[in-house]
Amino acid sequence: MKITKSYKSFGGTSQFCEHESSATASTMKFSLFVPPGPIKGCLFWLSGLTCTEENFMSKAGAQRYLAEAQILLVCPDTSPRGLGLPGVQDAWDFGEGAGFYVDAETAGFNKHYRMYSYILDDLLPLVKSQYPSIEDRIGIFGHSMGGHGALVLGLRNPKLFRSVSAFAPIANPLLSAWGQKAFRGYLGPESKLWNAYDATDLLASGYKHPSPLLIDQGTEDQFLKDQQLLPENLLAAAQKSGQKIEFHLREGYDHSYYFIASFVADHIAFHAKRLALQS
Amino acid sequence: MKITKSYKSFGGTSQFCEHESSATASTMKFSLFVPPGPIKGCLFWLSGLTCTEENFMSKAGAQRYLAEAQILLVCPDTSPRGLGLPGVQDAWDFGEGAGFYVDAETAGFNKHYRMYSYILDDLLPLVKSQYPSIEDRIGIFGHSMGGHGALVLGLRNPKLFRSVSAFAPIANPLLSAWGQKAFRGYLGPESKLWNAYDATDLLASGYKHPSPLLIDQGTEDQFLKDQQLLPENLLAAAQKSGQKIEFHLREGYDHSYYFIASFVADHIAFHAKRLALQS
Repeated sequence: MKITKSYKSFGGTSQFCEHESSATASTMKFSLFVPPGPIKGCLFWLSGLTCTEENFMSKAGAQRYLAEAQILLVCPDTSPRGLGLPGVQDAWDFGEGAGFYVDAETAGFNKHYRMYSYILDDLLPLVKSQYPSIEDRIGIFGHSMGGHGALVLGLRNPKLFRSVSAFAPIANPLLSAWGQKAFRGYLGPESKLWNAYDATDLLASGYKHPSPLLIDQGTEDQFLKDQQLLPENLLAAAQKSGQKIEFHLREGYDHSYYFIASFVADHIAFHAKRLALQS
Repeated sequence: MKITKSYKSFGGTSQFCEHESSATASTMKFSLFVPPGPIKGCLFWLSGLTCTEENFMSKAGAQRYLAEAQILLVCPDTSPRGLGLPGVQDAWDFGEGAGFYVDAETAGFNKHYRMYSYILDDLLPLVKSQYPSIEDRIGIFGHSMGGHGALVLGLRNPKLFRSVSAFAPIANPLLSAWGQKAFRGYLGPESKLWNAYDATDLLASGYKHPSPLLIDQGTEDQFLKDQQLLPENLLAAAQKSGQKIEFHLREGYDHSYYFIASFVADHIAFHAKRLALQS
Protein backbone atom coordinates (compact mmCIF):
# COMPACT_ATOMS: atom_id res chain seq x y z
CA MET A 1 0.00 0.00 0.00
CA LYS A 2 1.48 3.29 -1.16
CA ILE A 3 0.19 6.68 0.02
CA THR A 4 0.40 9.02 -2.97
CA LYS A 5 -1.13 12.16 -1.41
CA SER A 6 -1.99 13.12 2.14
CA TYR A 7 -3.89 16.15 3.43
CA LYS A 8 -4.41 17.04 7.05
CA SER A 9 -8.18 17.33 7.64
CA PHE A 10 -10.05 17.97 10.87
CA GLY A 11 -7.08 16.80 12.89
CA GLY A 12 -6.82 13.55 10.91
CA THR A 13 -5.63 12.88 7.37
CA SER A 14 -7.37 12.46 4.03
CA GLN A 15 -5.11 10.07 2.14
CA PHE A 16 -4.96 8.85 -1.44
CA CYS A 17 -3.45 5.41 -1.85
CA GLU A 18 -2.80 2.67 -4.37
CA HIS A 19 -1.99 -1.01 -4.13
CA GLU A 20 -1.71 -4.13 -6.25
CA SER A 21 -4.94 -6.09 -6.32
CA SER A 22 -5.11 -9.84 -7.01
CA ALA A 23 -8.86 -9.71 -7.57
CA THR A 24 -8.61 -7.21 -10.41
CA ALA A 25 -5.05 -8.08 -11.48
CA SER A 26 -4.25 -4.39 -11.58
CA THR A 27 -3.16 -1.41 -9.54
CA MET A 28 -6.17 -0.06 -7.67
CA LYS A 29 -6.66 3.36 -6.13
CA PHE A 30 -8.56 4.17 -2.98
CA SER A 31 -8.76 6.91 -0.40
CA LEU A 32 -8.81 6.87 3.37
CA PHE A 33 -9.79 9.29 6.06
CA VAL A 34 -7.81 8.44 9.15
CA PRO A 35 -9.35 10.20 12.15
CA PRO A 36 -7.20 11.63 14.94
CA GLY A 37 -6.78 9.52 18.08
CA PRO A 38 -7.84 5.90 18.58
CA ILE A 39 -9.83 4.37 15.71
CA LYS A 40 -13.03 2.75 16.88
CA GLY A 41 -14.65 1.56 13.67
CA CYS A 42 -14.60 1.65 9.90
CA LEU A 43 -16.94 2.66 7.11
CA PHE A 44 -16.63 1.68 3.46
CA TRP A 45 -18.02 4.26 1.03
CA LEU A 46 -18.86 3.11 -2.50
CA SER A 47 -19.19 5.87 -5.07
CA GLY A 48 -21.48 6.29 -8.05
CA LEU A 49 -21.00 6.27 -11.81
CA THR A 50 -18.09 8.39 -13.13
CA CYS A 51 -16.65 8.90 -9.66
CA THR A 52 -13.12 8.12 -8.55
CA GLU A 53 -11.79 7.67 -5.03
CA GLU A 54 -11.71 11.47 -4.74
CA ASN A 55 -15.31 12.71 -5.07
CA PHE A 56 -16.56 11.70 -1.66
CA MET A 57 -13.38 12.89 0.06
CA SER A 58 -13.50 16.37 -1.47
CA LYS A 59 -17.24 17.01 -1.71
CA ALA A 60 -19.22 15.18 0.98
CA GLY A 61 -17.96 17.08 4.01
CA ALA A 62 -17.80 13.81 5.97
CA GLN A 63 -14.44 14.26 7.68
CA ARG A 64 -15.78 16.36 10.53
CA TYR A 65 -18.25 13.67 11.59
CA LEU A 66 -15.83 10.81 10.99
CA ALA A 67 -13.26 12.58 13.16
CA GLU A 68 -15.81 13.08 15.94
CA ALA A 69 -16.97 9.45 15.81
CA GLN A 70 -13.37 8.17 15.40
CA ILE A 71 -14.32 6.23 12.29
CA LEU A 72 -11.86 5.25 9.57
CA LEU A 73 -13.30 5.81 6.08
CA VAL A 74 -12.30 3.66 3.10
CA CYS A 75 -13.33 4.77 -0.38
CA PRO A 76 -12.34 2.56 -3.32
CA ASP A 77 -12.23 3.73 -6.92
CA THR A 78 -15.28 2.63 -8.94
CA SER A 79 -13.45 0.29 -11.35
CA PRO A 80 -10.03 -0.85 -12.51
CA ARG A 81 -8.51 1.63 -14.98
CA GLY A 82 -6.02 1.88 -17.78
CA LEU A 83 -6.20 -1.75 -18.88
CA GLY A 84 -7.12 -1.10 -22.50
CA LEU A 85 -10.19 -3.36 -22.47
CA PRO A 86 -12.57 -2.78 -25.40
CA GLY A 87 -15.21 -0.09 -24.89
CA VAL A 88 -14.33 0.84 -21.31
CA GLN A 89 -13.80 4.50 -22.14
CA ASP A 90 -16.68 4.89 -24.58
CA ALA A 91 -19.55 5.51 -22.14
CA TRP A 92 -19.89 6.97 -18.68
CA ASP A 93 -22.18 4.15 -17.53
CA PHE A 94 -20.02 1.18 -18.49
CA GLY A 95 -16.35 0.31 -18.09
CA GLU A 96 -14.01 2.74 -16.34
CA GLY A 97 -15.79 4.51 -13.50
CA ALA A 98 -18.69 2.05 -13.71
CA GLY A 99 -17.63 -1.28 -12.23
CA PHE A 100 -21.03 -1.86 -10.60
CA TYR A 101 -19.44 -3.86 -7.76
CA VAL A 102 -19.88 -7.19 -9.55
CA ASP A 103 -17.45 -10.00 -10.45
CA ALA A 104 -17.52 -10.02 -14.24
CA GLU A 105 -17.90 -13.27 -16.17
CA THR A 106 -17.58 -12.06 -19.73
CA ALA A 107 -14.36 -12.46 -21.71
CA GLY A 108 -11.75 -9.82 -20.89
CA PHE A 109 -13.74 -8.33 -18.05
CA ASN A 110 -13.61 -11.54 -16.01
CA LYS A 111 -9.90 -11.03 -15.34
CA HIS A 112 -10.19 -7.47 -14.07
CA TYR A 113 -13.71 -6.14 -13.46
CA ARG A 114 -14.13 -7.99 -10.19
CA MET A 115 -15.03 -5.18 -7.80
CA TYR A 116 -17.15 -7.40 -5.53
CA SER A 117 -14.20 -9.66 -4.75
CA TYR A 118 -11.82 -6.73 -4.77
CA ILE A 119 -13.60 -5.13 -1.85
CA LEU A 120 -14.09 -8.33 0.12
CA ASP A 121 -10.83 -10.14 -0.57
CA ASP A 122 -8.28 -7.41 -1.21
CA LEU A 123 -9.27 -4.05 0.24
CA LEU A 124 -10.99 -5.20 3.41
CA PRO A 125 -8.12 -7.48 4.51
CA LEU A 126 -5.60 -4.74 3.69
CA VAL A 127 -7.47 -2.21 5.82
CA LYS A 128 -7.88 -4.68 8.68
CA SER A 129 -4.18 -5.47 8.64
CA GLN A 130 -3.27 -1.78 8.72
CA TYR A 131 -5.90 -0.80 11.29
CA PRO A 132 -6.55 -3.84 13.51
CA SER A 133 -8.40 -1.75 16.11
CA ILE A 134 -11.48 -1.60 13.85
CA GLU A 135 -11.99 -5.35 14.62
CA ASP A 136 -15.45 -6.29 13.38
CA ARG A 137 -16.94 -2.82 13.63
CA ILE A 138 -17.31 -2.23 9.91
CA GLY A 139 -20.21 -0.65 8.04
CA ILE A 140 -20.83 0.11 4.38
CA PHE A 141 -22.62 2.89 2.54
CA GLY A 142 -22.68 4.45 -0.90
CA HIS A 143 -24.41 6.55 -3.51
CA SER A 144 -26.37 5.55 -6.63
CA MET A 145 -24.31 2.72 -8.23
CA GLY A 146 -22.41 2.69 -4.93
CA GLY A 147 -25.68 2.56 -2.98
CA HIS A 148 -26.47 -0.56 -5.00
CA GLY A 149 -23.03 -1.93 -4.15
CA ALA A 150 -23.44 -1.20 -0.44
CA LEU A 151 -26.87 -2.87 -0.29
CA VAL A 152 -25.67 -5.96 -2.18
CA LEU A 153 -22.42 -6.35 -0.24
CA GLY A 154 -24.23 -5.68 3.04
CA LEU A 155 -27.11 -8.10 2.42
CA ARG A 156 -24.80 -10.87 1.25
CA ASN A 157 -22.29 -10.32 4.06
CA PRO A 158 -24.24 -9.15 7.09
CA LYS A 159 -21.67 -10.39 9.60
CA LEU A 160 -18.89 -8.53 7.83
CA PHE A 161 -20.81 -5.29 7.27
CA ARG A 162 -22.78 -4.74 10.43
CA SER A 163 -24.48 -1.54 9.26
CA VAL A 164 -25.66 -0.59 5.77
CA SER A 165 -26.99 2.64 4.30
CA ALA A 166 -27.40 4.26 0.90
CA PHE A 167 -28.09 7.55 -0.83
CA ALA A 168 -30.33 7.22 -3.88
CA PRO A 169 -29.28 3.62 -4.60
CA ILE A 170 -29.89 1.77 -7.86
CA ALA A 171 -32.17 -0.47 -5.84
CA ASN A 172 -33.35 -2.87 -8.52
CA PRO A 173 -30.73 -2.92 -11.30
CA LEU A 174 -32.42 -5.92 -12.99
CA LEU A 175 -35.16 -3.52 -14.03
CA SER A 176 -33.14 -0.33 -14.69
CA ALA A 177 -31.47 0.58 -17.98
CA TRP A 178 -28.14 1.24 -16.25
CA GLY A 179 -28.22 -2.08 -14.45
CA GLN A 180 -29.24 -4.08 -17.50
CA LYS A 181 -26.49 -2.57 -19.63
CA ALA A 182 -23.85 -3.21 -16.98
CA PHE A 183 -24.99 -6.73 -16.11
CA ARG A 184 -25.18 -7.70 -19.79
CA GLY A 185 -21.66 -6.39 -20.34
CA TYR A 186 -20.08 -7.85 -17.22
CA LEU A 187 -22.18 -10.97 -16.59
CA GLY A 188 -23.49 -11.94 -20.01
CA PRO A 189 -27.09 -12.55 -21.09
CA GLU A 190 -29.73 -12.40 -18.39
CA SER A 191 -29.27 -15.33 -16.02
CA LYS A 192 -29.31 -16.27 -12.36
CA LEU A 193 -25.94 -14.53 -12.08
CA TRP A 194 -27.73 -11.20 -12.31
CA ASN A 195 -29.90 -11.88 -9.28
CA ALA A 196 -26.97 -12.08 -6.88
CA TYR A 197 -26.30 -8.41 -7.60
CA ASP A 198 -29.78 -7.01 -7.16
CA ALA A 199 -30.73 -5.81 -3.67
CA THR A 200 -34.46 -6.08 -4.33
CA ASP A 201 -34.10 -9.63 -5.62
CA LEU A 202 -31.85 -10.57 -2.70
CA LEU A 203 -34.56 -9.48 -0.25
CA ALA A 204 -37.16 -11.42 -2.23
CA SER A 205 -34.88 -14.49 -2.09
CA GLY A 206 -34.60 -14.44 1.68
CA TYR A 207 -31.47 -12.39 2.28
CA LYS A 208 -31.94 -10.20 5.32
CA HIS A 209 -29.79 -7.89 7.39
CA PRO A 210 -30.22 -7.95 11.17
CA SER A 211 -29.85 -4.15 11.31
CA PRO A 212 -32.35 -1.81 9.65
CA LEU A 213 -31.07 -0.34 6.39
CA LEU A 214 -31.00 3.46 6.10
CA ILE A 215 -31.87 5.00 2.73
CA ASP A 216 -32.16 8.66 1.73
CA GLN A 217 -33.75 9.59 -1.61
CA GLY A 218 -34.34 13.08 -3.01
CA THR A 219 -37.69 13.80 -4.65
CA GLU A 220 -36.09 15.95 -7.40
CA ASP A 221 -33.61 13.29 -8.42
CA GLN A 222 -33.69 13.06 -12.21
CA PHE A 223 -32.64 9.41 -12.12
CA LEU A 224 -35.51 8.57 -9.79
CA LYS A 225 -37.85 10.08 -12.38
CA ASP A 226 -36.04 8.17 -15.13
CA GLN A 227 -36.77 4.83 -13.38
CA GLN A 228 -33.09 4.06 -12.86
CA LEU A 229 -33.29 3.81 -9.06
CA LEU A 230 -36.64 2.12 -8.29
CA PRO A 231 -36.54 2.35 -4.47
CA GLU A 232 -40.27 1.52 -4.43
CA ASN A 233 -39.42 -2.01 -5.54
CA LEU A 234 -36.88 -2.42 -2.75
CA LEU A 235 -39.36 -1.09 -0.18
CA ALA A 236 -42.06 -3.49 -1.37
CA ALA A 237 -39.67 -6.46 -1.19
CA ALA A 238 -38.52 -5.36 2.28
CA GLN A 239 -42.06 -5.07 3.55
CA LYS A 240 -42.83 -8.55 2.25
CA SER A 241 -39.70 -10.09 3.72
CA GLY A 242 -39.68 -8.22 7.04
CA GLN A 243 -36.41 -6.37 6.35
CA LYS A 244 -36.54 -3.11 8.26
CA ILE A 245 -35.68 0.00 6.25
CA GLU A 246 -35.50 3.57 7.51
CA PHE A 247 -36.46 5.34 4.30
CA HIS A 248 -36.34 9.13 4.05
CA LEU A 249 -37.81 10.85 1.04
CA ARG A 250 -36.14 14.28 0.98
CA GLU A 251 -38.30 16.96 -0.57
CA GLY A 252 -36.54 19.04 -3.23
CA TYR A 253 -33.17 17.26 -3.14
CA ASP A 254 -31.55 15.91 -6.29
CA HIS A 255 -28.88 13.27 -7.06
CA SER A 256 -25.82 15.46 -6.46
CA TYR A 257 -23.18 15.71 -3.78
CA TYR A 258 -25.10 18.73 -2.45
CA PHE A 259 -27.74 16.17 -1.45
CA ILE A 260 -25.20 13.75 0.03
CA ALA A 261 -23.45 16.50 2.00
CA SER A 262 -26.78 17.57 3.49
CA PHE A 263 -27.42 14.18 5.10
CA VAL A 264 -24.00 12.58 5.49
CA ALA A 265 -23.90 13.43 9.20
CA ASP A 266 -27.13 11.45 9.71
CA HIS A 267 -25.66 8.44 7.95
CA ILE A 268 -22.43 8.51 9.94
CA ALA A 269 -24.43 8.80 13.20
CA PHE A 270 -26.58 5.85 12.07
CA HIS A 271 -23.51 3.68 11.47
CA ALA A 272 -21.80 4.80 14.69
CA LYS A 273 -24.87 3.76 16.62
CA ARG A 274 -25.26 0.40 14.83
CA LEU A 275 -21.57 -0.36 15.26
CA ALA A 276 -22.06 0.38 18.97
CA LEU A 277 -19.56 3.20 18.87
CA GLN A 278 -22.06 5.39 20.67
CA SER A 279 -25.45 4.85 22.23
CA MET B 1 -29.56 37.96 -12.70
CA LYS B 2 -30.14 34.49 -14.12
CA ILE B 3 -29.97 31.32 -12.02
CA THR B 4 -28.40 28.63 -14.19
CA LYS B 5 -28.28 25.76 -11.67
CA SER B 6 -29.82 25.27 -8.26
CA TYR B 7 -29.24 22.50 -5.72
CA LYS B 8 -31.08 22.07 -2.47
CA SER B 9 -28.48 22.00 0.33
CA PHE B 10 -29.01 21.82 4.08
CA GLY B 11 -32.54 23.11 3.69
CA GLY B 12 -31.40 26.09 1.60
CA THR B 13 -30.16 26.29 -1.97
CA SER B 14 -26.71 26.38 -3.56
CA GLN B 15 -27.23 28.43 -6.71
CA PHE B 16 -25.12 29.20 -9.74
CA CYS B 17 -25.90 32.52 -11.40
CA GLU B 18 -24.77 34.90 -14.09
CA HIS B 19 -25.39 38.56 -14.83
CA GLU B 20 -24.18 41.38 -17.03
CA SER B 21 -21.51 43.47 -15.32
CA SER B 22 -20.80 47.09 -16.22
CA ALA B 23 -17.51 47.05 -14.34
CA THR B 24 -16.06 44.22 -16.42
CA ALA B 25 -18.18 44.81 -19.54
CA SER B 26 -18.92 41.12 -19.66
CA THR B 27 -21.14 38.36 -18.37
CA MET B 28 -19.97 37.35 -14.92
CA LYS B 29 -20.67 34.17 -13.02
CA PHE B 30 -21.13 33.81 -9.30
CA SER B 31 -22.67 31.40 -6.83
CA LEU B 32 -24.94 31.91 -3.85
CA PHE B 33 -25.91 29.85 -0.88
CA VAL B 34 -29.34 30.99 0.22
CA PRO B 35 -30.04 29.66 3.72
CA PRO B 36 -33.50 28.49 4.75
CA GLY B 37 -35.65 30.93 6.70
CA PRO B 38 -34.98 34.63 7.31
CA ILE B 39 -31.59 35.89 6.11
CA LYS B 40 -29.71 37.75 8.81
CA GLY B 41 -26.42 38.63 7.15
CA CYS B 42 -24.15 38.09 4.17
CA LEU B 43 -20.64 36.85 3.54
CA PHE B 44 -18.60 37.36 0.38
CA TRP B 45 -16.12 34.58 -0.34
CA LEU B 46 -13.25 35.34 -2.73
CA SER B 47 -11.53 32.29 -4.21
CA GLY B 48 -7.93 31.63 -5.08
CA LEU B 49 -5.98 31.18 -8.31
CA THR B 50 -7.56 28.81 -10.88
CA CYS B 51 -10.85 28.64 -8.99
CA THR B 52 -14.28 29.41 -10.38
CA GLU B 53 -17.46 30.22 -8.50
CA GLU B 54 -17.86 26.49 -7.87
CA ASN B 55 -14.88 25.36 -5.77
CA PHE B 56 -15.94 26.83 -2.46
CA MET B 57 -19.55 25.71 -2.92
CA SER B 58 -18.66 22.09 -3.62
CA LYS B 59 -15.58 21.57 -1.45
CA ALA B 60 -15.61 23.79 1.64
CA GLY B 61 -18.53 22.21 3.47
CA ALA B 62 -19.73 25.69 4.50
CA GLN B 63 -23.44 25.30 3.83
CA ARG B 64 -24.22 23.62 7.13
CA TYR B 65 -22.80 26.51 9.15
CA LEU B 66 -24.23 29.18 6.86
CA ALA B 67 -27.67 27.58 7.20
CA GLU B 68 -27.37 27.51 10.98
CA ALA B 69 -26.22 31.15 11.16
CA GLN B 70 -28.77 32.22 8.50
CA ILE B 71 -26.03 33.82 6.41
CA LEU B 72 -26.27 34.36 2.65
CA LEU B 73 -23.02 33.45 0.88
CA VAL B 74 -21.89 35.19 -2.31
CA CYS B 75 -19.00 33.71 -4.27
CA PRO B 76 -17.87 35.51 -7.44
CA ASP B 77 -15.80 33.92 -10.17
CA THR B 78 -12.12 34.90 -10.02
CA SER B 79 -12.00 36.86 -13.28
CA PRO B 80 -13.93 37.70 -16.44
CA ARG B 81 -13.69 34.89 -18.99
CA GLY B 82 -13.96 34.22 -22.69
CA LEU B 83 -12.98 37.71 -23.88
CA GLY B 84 -10.06 36.65 -26.04
CA LEU B 85 -7.57 39.02 -24.41
CA PRO B 86 -3.92 38.18 -25.15
CA GLY B 87 -2.27 35.69 -22.81
CA VAL B 88 -5.20 35.16 -20.46
CA GLN B 89 -5.26 31.41 -21.00
CA ASP B 90 -1.50 30.84 -21.09
CA ALA B 91 -0.76 30.64 -17.36
CA TRP B 92 -2.66 29.61 -14.27
CA ASP B 93 -1.46 32.63 -12.30
CA PHE B 94 -2.46 35.38 -14.73
CA GLY B 95 -5.56 36.14 -16.77
CA GLU B 96 -8.57 33.86 -16.55
CA GLY B 97 -8.98 32.51 -13.03
CA ALA B 98 -6.47 35.04 -11.71
CA GLY B 99 -8.09 38.49 -11.61
CA PHE B 100 -6.37 39.38 -8.31
CA TYR B 101 -9.28 41.64 -7.31
CA VAL B 102 -7.69 44.75 -8.84
CA ASP B 103 -8.94 47.33 -11.35
CA ALA B 104 -6.57 46.90 -14.28
CA GLU B 105 -4.94 49.90 -15.93
CA THR B 106 -3.07 48.27 -18.77
CA ALA B 107 -4.39 48.29 -22.34
CA GLY B 108 -7.05 45.68 -22.99
CA PHE B 109 -7.29 44.61 -19.37
CA ASN B 110 -8.51 48.03 -18.23
CA LYS B 111 -11.87 47.46 -19.92
CA HIS B 112 -12.56 44.09 -18.33
CA TYR B 113 -10.22 43.00 -15.55
CA ARG B 114 -11.80 45.23 -12.94
CA MET B 115 -12.68 42.76 -10.19
CA TYR B 116 -12.30 45.32 -7.39
CA SER B 117 -15.00 47.55 -8.86
CA TYR B 118 -17.01 44.53 -9.99
CA ILE B 119 -17.47 43.36 -6.42
CA LEU B 120 -18.15 46.80 -4.95
CA ASP B 121 -20.22 48.38 -7.71
CA ASP B 122 -21.96 45.49 -9.45
CA LEU B 123 -22.21 42.38 -7.32
CA LEU B 124 -22.74 43.96 -3.92
CA PRO B 125 -25.59 46.25 -5.08
CA LEU B 126 -27.19 43.34 -6.94
CA VAL B 127 -27.12 41.15 -3.85
CA LYS B 128 -28.44 43.96 -1.64
CA SER B 129 -31.30 44.59 -4.04
CA GLN B 130 -32.22 40.90 -4.10
CA TYR B 131 -31.76 40.32 -0.36
CA PRO B 132 -32.49 43.64 1.41
CA SER B 133 -32.70 41.94 4.81
CA ILE B 134 -28.91 41.66 4.96
CA GLU B 135 -28.81 45.47 5.44
CA ASP B 136 -25.27 46.40 6.47
CA ARG B 137 -24.40 43.04 8.00
CA ILE B 138 -21.85 42.03 5.38
CA GLY B 139 -18.50 40.37 5.89
CA ILE B 140 -15.80 39.19 3.50
CA PHE B 141 -13.36 36.30 3.49
CA GLY B 142 -11.27 34.35 1.03
CA HIS B 143 -8.38 32.03 0.30
CA SER B 144 -4.90 32.72 -1.07
CA MET B 145 -5.43 35.25 -3.92
CA GLY B 146 -8.94 35.62 -2.51
CA GLY B 147 -7.56 36.11 1.01
CA HIS B 148 -5.56 38.99 -0.45
CA GLY B 149 -8.74 40.30 -2.06
CA ALA B 150 -10.72 40.04 1.17
CA LEU B 151 -8.04 41.85 3.20
CA VAL B 152 -7.70 44.65 0.63
CA LEU B 153 -11.43 45.14 0.10
CA GLY B 154 -12.04 44.93 3.85
CA LEU B 155 -9.30 47.37 4.86
CA ARG B 156 -10.28 49.89 2.19
CA ASN B 157 -14.02 49.58 2.91
CA PRO B 158 -14.37 48.85 6.63
CA LYS B 159 -17.89 50.29 6.86
CA LEU B 160 -19.07 48.11 3.99
CA PHE B 161 -17.34 44.92 5.11
CA ARG B 162 -17.75 44.80 8.84
CA SER B 163 -15.84 41.58 9.35
CA VAL B 164 -12.81 40.26 7.47
CA SER B 165 -10.99 36.94 7.51
CA ALA B 166 -8.65 34.95 5.31
CA PHE B 167 -7.18 31.51 4.77
CA ALA B 168 -3.52 31.56 3.73
CA PRO B 169 -3.77 35.00 2.07
CA ILE B 170 -1.21 36.47 -0.31
CA ALA B 171 -0.57 39.02 2.40
CA ASN B 172 2.11 41.12 0.75
CA PRO B 173 1.76 40.74 -3.04
CA LEU B 174 4.25 43.58 -3.67
CA LEU B 175 6.95 41.18 -2.51
CA SER B 176 5.63 37.89 -3.89
CA ALA B 177 6.30 36.51 -7.37
CA TRP B 178 2.58 35.91 -7.99
CA GLY B 179 1.67 39.44 -6.93
CA GLN B 180 4.43 41.09 -8.93
CA LYS B 181 3.50 39.22 -12.10
CA ALA B 182 -0.18 40.06 -11.73
CA PHE B 183 0.33 43.70 -10.78
CA ARG B 184 2.78 44.24 -13.63
CA GLY B 185 0.29 42.74 -16.08
CA TYR B 186 -2.80 44.48 -14.79
CA LEU B 187 -1.42 47.75 -13.37
CA GLY B 188 1.77 48.35 -15.36
CA PRO B 189 5.28 48.96 -14.05
CA GLU B 190 5.70 49.24 -10.29
CA SER B 191 4.03 52.41 -9.07
CA LYS B 192 1.88 53.79 -6.30
CA LEU B 193 -1.04 51.98 -7.95
CA TRP B 194 0.36 48.71 -6.65
CA ASN B 195 0.23 49.83 -3.01
CA ALA B 196 -3.54 50.21 -2.97
CA TYR B 197 -3.79 46.46 -3.52
CA ASP B 198 -1.36 45.25 -0.87
CA ALA B 199 -2.81 44.52 2.58
CA THR B 200 0.55 44.87 4.33
CA ASP B 201 1.21 48.21 2.67
CA LEU B 202 -2.31 49.41 3.46
CA LEU B 203 -1.72 48.72 7.16
CA ALA B 204 1.62 50.52 6.99
CA SER B 205 -0.13 53.48 5.33
CA GLY B 206 -2.67 53.87 8.12
CA TYR B 207 -5.59 51.78 6.91
CA LYS B 208 -7.16 50.01 9.83
CA HIS B 209 -10.21 47.86 10.40
CA PRO B 210 -12.20 48.38 13.61
CA SER B 211 -12.73 44.62 13.96
CA PRO B 212 -9.85 42.20 14.46
CA LEU B 213 -8.92 40.30 11.31
CA LEU B 214 -8.96 36.50 11.48
CA ILE B 215 -6.27 34.62 9.56
CA ASP B 216 -5.58 30.87 9.40
CA GLN B 217 -2.33 29.62 7.88
CA GLY B 218 -1.13 26.02 7.55
CA THR B 219 2.48 25.24 8.42
CA GLU B 220 2.81 22.72 5.57
CA ASP B 221 1.59 25.13 2.91
CA GLN B 222 4.00 24.89 -0.03
CA PHE B 223 3.26 28.49 -1.04
CA LEU B 224 4.14 29.72 2.46
CA LYS B 225 7.49 28.01 2.05
CA ASP B 226 7.83 29.50 -1.45
CA GLN B 227 7.47 33.04 -0.01
CA GLN B 228 4.29 33.72 -1.98
CA LEU B 229 2.12 34.44 1.07
CA LEU B 230 4.35 36.33 3.54
CA PRO B 231 1.93 36.56 6.47
CA GLU B 232 4.87 37.53 8.70
CA ASN B 233 5.05 40.87 6.90
CA LEU B 234 1.35 41.51 7.48
CA LEU B 235 1.66 40.60 11.16
CA ALA B 236 4.63 42.94 11.60
CA ALA B 237 2.76 45.81 9.93
CA ALA B 238 -0.31 45.10 12.06
CA GLN B 239 1.69 45.10 15.25
CA LYS B 240 3.23 48.43 14.31
CA SER B 241 -0.08 50.01 13.36
CA GLY B 242 -2.19 48.55 16.14
CA GLN B 243 -4.43 46.50 13.82
CA LYS B 244 -5.63 43.51 15.78
CA ILE B 245 -5.22 40.14 14.05
CA GLU B 246 -6.28 36.73 15.35
CA PHE B 247 -3.63 34.65 13.65
CA HIS B 248 -3.72 30.86 13.84
CA LEU B 249 -0.79 28.85 12.59
CA ARG B 250 -2.21 25.37 11.93
CA GLU B 251 0.33 22.63 12.37
CA GLY B 252 0.48 20.18 9.46
CA TYR B 253 -2.15 21.80 7.24
CA ASP B 254 -1.45 22.70 3.62
CA HIS B 255 -2.96 25.12 1.07
CA SER B 256 -5.85 22.90 -0.09
CA TYR B 257 -9.59 22.86 0.41
CA TYR B 258 -9.01 20.10 3.00
CA PHE B 259 -7.43 22.87 5.10
CA ILE B 260 -10.24 25.34 4.39
CA ALA B 261 -12.95 22.78 5.20
CA SER B 262 -11.29 22.03 8.53
CA PHE B 263 -11.62 25.61 9.76
CA VAL B 264 -14.49 27.11 7.79
CA ALA B 265 -16.88 26.69 10.73
CA ASP B 266 -14.56 28.84 12.87
CA HIS B 267 -14.53 31.57 10.24
CA ILE B 268 -18.29 31.59 9.82
CA ALA B 269 -18.72 31.77 13.61
CA PHE B 270 -16.21 34.66 13.72
CA HIS B 271 -18.17 36.60 11.11
CA ALA B 272 -21.54 35.81 12.70
CA LYS B 273 -20.24 37.20 15.98
CA ARG B 274 -18.70 40.33 14.40
CA LEU B 275 -21.84 40.99 12.39
CA ALA B 276 -23.74 40.72 15.69
CA LEU B 277 -25.79 37.80 14.43
CA GLN B 278 -25.02 35.95 17.63
CA SER B 279 -23.25 36.78 20.86
